[in-house]
Amino acid sequence: MAADALAGLIAELPEGTVVTDPAITEGYRQDRALDPTAGKPMAVVRPRRTEEVQIVLRWATAHQIPVVTRGMGTGLSGGATAVDGGIVLTTEKMRDIVVDPVTRTAVCQPGLLNAEVKKTAAEYGLWYPPDPSSYEICSIGGNIATNAGGLCCVKYGVTTDYVLGMQVVLADGTAVRLGGARLKDVAGLSLTKLFVGSEGALGVITEVTLRLVPAQQPVSTVVANFPTLESAAQAVLGVTSRLRPSMLEFMDAATINAVEDKLRMGLDRGSAAMLVAASDERGRAGSEDAELMAATFAEFGAGEVFSTDDPDEGEAFVAARRFAIPAVEEKGPLLLEDVGVPVPALADLVGGIARISAEREVMIAVIAHAGDGNTHPLIVYNPDDVAMTERAQVAYGEIMDLAVDLGGTITGEHGVGRLKRPWLDGYLGPEAMALNRRIKDALDPQGILNPGVGV
Amino acid sequence: MAADALAGLIAELPEGTVVTDPAITEGYRQDRALDPTAGKPMAVVRPRRTEEVQIVLRWATAHQIPVVTRGMGTGLSGGATAVDGGIVLTTEKMRDIVVDPVTRTAVCQPGLLNAEVKKTAAEYGLWYPPDPSSYEICSIGGNIATNAGGLCCVKYGVTTDYVLGMQVVLADGTAVRLGGARLKDVAGLSLTKLFVGSEGALGVITEVTLRLVPAQQPVSTVVANFPTLESAAQAVLGVTSRLRPSMLEFMDAATINAVEDKLRMGLDRGSAAMLVAASDERGRAGSEDAELMAATFAEFGAGEVFSTDDPDEGEAFVAARRFAIPAVEEKGPLLLEDVGVPVPALADLVGGIARISAEREVMIAVIAHAGDGNTHPLIVYNPDDVAMTERAQVAYGEIMDLAVDLGGTITGEHGVGRLKRPWLDGYLGPEAMALNRRIKDALDPQGILNPGVGV
Repeated sequence: MAADALAGLIAELPEGTVVTDPAITEGYRQDRALDPTAGKPMAVVRPRRTEEVQIVLRWATAHQIPVVTRGMGTGLSGGATAVDGGIVLTTEKMRDIVVDPVTRTAVCQPGLLNAEVKKTAAEYGLWYPPDPSSYEICSIGGNIATNAGGLCCVKYGVTTDYVLGMQVVLADGTAVRLGGARLKDVAGLSLTKLFVGSEGALGVITEVTLRLVPAQQPVSTVVANFPTLESAAQAVLGVTSRLRPSMLEFMDAATINAVEDKLRMGLDRGSAAMLVAASDERGRAGSEDAELMAATFAEFGAGEVFSTDDPDEGEAFVAARRFAIPAVEEKGPLLLEDVGVPVPALADLVGGIARISAEREVMIAVIAHAGDGNTHPLIVYNPDDVAMTERAQVAYGEIMDLAVDLGGTITGEHGVGRLKRPWLDGYLGPEAMALNRRIKDALDPQGILNPGVGV
Repeated sequence: MAADALAGLIAELPEGTVVTDPAITEGYRQDRALDPTAGKPMAVVRPRRTEEVQIVLRWATAHQIPVVTRGMGTGLSGGATAVDGGIVLTTEKMRDIVVDPVTRTAVCQPGLLNAEVKKTAAEYGLWYPPDPSSYEICSIGGNIATNAGGLCCVKYGVTTDYVLGMQVVLADGTAVRLGGARLKDVAGLSLTKLFVGSEGALGVITEVTLRLVPAQQPVSTVVANFPTLESAAQAVLGVTSRLRPSMLEFMDAATINAVEDKLRMGLDRGSAAMLVAASDERGRAGSEDAELMAATFAEFGAGEVFSTDDPDEGEAFVAARRFAIPAVEEKGPLLLEDVGVPVPALADLVGGIARISAEREVMIAVIAHAGDGNTHPLIVYNPDDVAMTERAQVAYGEIMDLAVDLGGTITGEHGVGRLKRPWLDGYLGPEAMALNRRIKDALDPQGILNPGVGV
């Protein structure tokens, strides 16, 4: 019967849109979370236009078939984990973009890479700020589905701050236009913002209108090593209470060593922590910020402080920070955490993670967008070691519990997906969870959109 | 029966919370839109705490009594128009605020004035940017209910960009906490953003967590007069394509003359338009921006250009702009429009409004937050002149139709309220309107929250 249904869908869409070859569909079962519970989809669908997405969803509603929407599959929480007998709808073929330099907006389809949006904007002297570490390989649609963050958020905010409008296809196939190329528009409910971060659970976004800003100024960069976690955490507070850096990143000793193992760039292996900070204020102000940050780092006990106004020289350290996840991944597969706390709780969080690491006997390297309190503890484990895998999973949960106890969140920028779903109720509480469900049920009454994800 | 019900509510709340004295309740029937269709509420309720709001809404749900939530009553679209037999819930007694300078956030109750939030933030060297012209008399809760804008939005965005979390009481009395003092938090749907701009139709916001930023730098200001509307509109485009002003305001000839009538500050009565622009970039960059804006204005045909790095001198012109509405109001009662268009359509919009003014024989003065395309045509009429009142109302609708034809919105920052409700369906279209209704029905199934407003 499912085969009959699928034949109907294949007939309605352009040739090649529906793929059932297992050799291909296998590659669409999991995102980077590599969720072992991923199911086998009956097909992968690769639409090119909104109308084709409508056909898919009308069909899915008629046959009550689950639809998992997927960008480039770089998600880290299992937000694009395939469901048995469902379909995976990939936006990878939807790649148009038009920039309007006068209104400083871009209208684009979801399948473009974040880096491609940035590059196209740059051709007009404009900038799309959000910069997840994966920006060269992740799709803008995935960014919007997860309300992705990145390194620049400490100054520039997150993805939702740049989404002015969209076209979205609802579960029943209705296409809806929301917002548009207007900085101000308060007619009707703020539905554009509701769909940002909804992880494919409310609809399929087929086009977005993004706000762009003038090109970033050349950055001044400061790098410092700290003898203790506490001194580094205090230095973060010192900086954020004095100025507004455009980046303020943290790496712990395990991360520093993993990066140095690969890059051999002379990082101080003996440091407890390293901070990489930047200012993109105009003219002299950027250098002044860098000087103030360098002085602040020294004041809070930094052992070595390096400061540069040369963007390329600074970029080497940012590259080291961006390289942290692959570098730690060399030690073994990762459970990649994404907890956030208010900045003053950063030292308690990182200290607590060290205790969890010792207690559960798993390596946990910590990197953080320290300026906004968003950390990525990287739990290294050996999947062939069943006991260790269990300990790693216990640690994964304990880190979330710790973050919540410290006033934080279970996910700062990666999304709930499937992996964090068991912690969502506890974090949100029954009232907020019920409200989430009410919205979900109103928009997707059959529950066909990314079931088990997000809400 | 309504009296019996009310007695029950009075008994449940602290003494003085429920007011039924007609001499007092009369003052709560209308906001500044002075909607003539406003009803007579059975009572005004002035809660001080979230728990009291819960009592009110549980009671209202039990008795199916409409609840109109109201801040300081400065709304311009009739978003706080009382309903016959309903209650008006005013947040004016809810006035606590706590600023945390380390996380740069403020937790505050909705009844504080916008100016009080700014002032308290300033005590910590911080700044809450959104600045509706009414900032000295409007409440922060009202700002959030309407997703209010202001003069700084061209650079700093609108209210929603500064709301990180809230506590909201739903129609059935359930209190829900959403978000919090975290720049990044993607656990669950983006419900905080959904409530911003919901005009009291989805719940009653009883506490908000606001994002603050470092204090604004001293501004450099440029003022220029233009011989034609077109030259001024082109100059706006010239500026926004070259830099990022912190303010870019427009006044037409009628407004200039109305302000000059009152302030006698030497404005050029013969100009077709005046632009007031500012830059708050740090150090030399602010002056450089001002110089570039002055050169741009001259290039596009400005007759006279005045530039100053003295904040007080600049503030005089901003004050003139802020004084525009009361100045024009001296000519007669106003229908205050709030349409927005993409910036390149500004000249067409202002030109079209001049045609509507001539055709309908009503004075329409135009002020605009030109940098983001948000205009406030001020339609002057005599309410004792029935024919003129009708012509003014026709013009009010025609201006919205014109804005929509130009790719704009029926309301940029004031909200839909009751006055613009008849145009909402046409603007949003049936699909988006149905989606709005689905959300409304899911959250307020009895329709007791601000019936007839917003959605």
